[in-house]
Amino acid sequence: MTYETKARSLVKTISWRILATLTTMALVYIFIGDMTIALSVGGIEVFLKMLVYFLHERAWDKIKFGKKEVKPAVIWLTGLVRSGKSAIAEEIVKQLHNKGLKAEHLDGHTVRNLFPETGHTRDEVNEHIKRVGYLASKLEEQGVFVVASFVSPFKESREFVRKICNNYQEVYVNTPIETCENRDESGLYNKAKQGLVLNLPGVNINYEEPVEPVIKIDNSKETNKELAFKVVKMFSNNLS
Amino acid sequence: MTYETKARSLVKTISWRILATLTTMALVYIFIGDMTIALSVGGIEVFLKMLVYFLHERAWDKIKFGKKEVKPAVIWLTGLVRSGKSAIAEEIVKQLHNKGLKAEHLDGHTVRNLFPETGHTRDEVNEHIKRVGYLASKLEEQGVFVVASFVSPFKESREFVRKICNNYQEVYVNTPIETCENRDESGLYNKAKQGLVLNLPGVNINYEEPVEPVIKIDNSKETNKELAFKVVKMFSNNLS
Repeated sequence: MTYETKARSLVKTISWRILATLTTMALVYIFIGDMTIALSVGGIEVFLKMLVYFLHERAWDKIKFGKKEVKPAVIWLTGLVRSGKSAIAEEIVKQLHNKGLKAEHLDGHTVRNLFPETGHTRDEVNEHIKRVGYLASKLEEQGVFVVASFVSPFKESREFVRKICNNYQEVYVNTPIETCENRDESGLYNKAKQGLVLNLPGVNINYEEPVEPVIKIDNSKETNKELAFKVVKMFSNNLS
Repeated sequence: MTYETKARSLVKTISWRILATLTTMALVYIFIGDMTIALSVGGIEVFLKMLVYFLHERAWDKIKFGKKEVKPAVIWLTGLVRSGKSAIAEEIVKQLHNKGLKAEHLDGHTVRNLFPETGHTRDEVNEHIKRVGYLASKLEEQGVFVVASFVSPFKESREFVRKICNNYQEVYVNTPIETCENRDESGLYNKAKQGLVLNLPGVNINYEEPVEPVIKIDNSKETNKELAFKVVKMFSNNLS
């Protein structure tokens, strides 16, 4: 998205006024100082200035000065399985779109086409997250907000993503593990406890908590809409 | 990039004129019909209208009506090794940027981070091209021109990319193979002929020529700048 700076509008205002006043002065000069005629000048001016204004607008549409791109962010949601990351992320994307911003949601499901996740070992997960991070950085570079929702349990790959993005913002979805377990209709947590599923963060392997997330959220206490609003607010304070 | 439609500028012109004329009429009413005073009204008007115009501009910056996004394209350069794809692609990206458009160059080197190319068999190459195509489609979806330069010798994966992109445009870089061989300082063509390198399109495996490319270019006859200009022209005729 682009928006116009106040400097742009100010310069445009001055350039318009100079044009408009010169137009009026030229007309008055042609009609030579008769004030009753000045009224008809006004009448003509209404239409003539509309034409001039329109051409002025078209000319300004070609000028880049003062047209600024909104600085996007990579909003990275990390948290346990079933903590609610994807649903919150979807809500964040929706709210960003409502503000007229460009936003893309990346999560396990949407990026599966791009890089089929081959496994869940530490190395494989790190590799996967790094590739997603690369995609995120490419989108961010082009002015797109990225909302990524991945368990991303390891500090190593999260820090890698932070480094390659310009404006990485870590959101820790720290819904209590008991809530995540209760929500888990697929029985993943039970299977992990029985050793039937390996590498489940919080059960068989450690989930490395974010050290300094920009915000911690928990959707067992607030609605996704409320949480998304909080997150979006943090990144839109500096917008126009 | 965004640009403004003529409809937007027209509506803006009318709304401004209504505002400006109402302002003048209100002033003249306050000063009551004395025409010599009308001149000083004009003097005041210059400054007052500047303020009104400025606020009017700021208000319009919040209005989405008539602000359109340029429709991007995925410009896909296919051709033999050393046909000059990357250099032409770089030149295309440069010219798109000069027009104020967003553009990203994807080629073997830039996407290596994202998906390390594991091999050069038919299946592996097809897989690789499909992933690149997915990345291209994501960028295109967000309003970014993508210029991709890959040998991409197989119709299957090129057609896959065509399908997932909204505006896929195939550019066939058909520099004669003799020229490609002469340029090849790494000796890849010689090695392939001796059987030391496998799967080199045009030597050990077939390069499947594009059936109906939007344009065929050959940089043994024209400069990259000239070729890029031709390609860019095809996609910018419909711009503003």
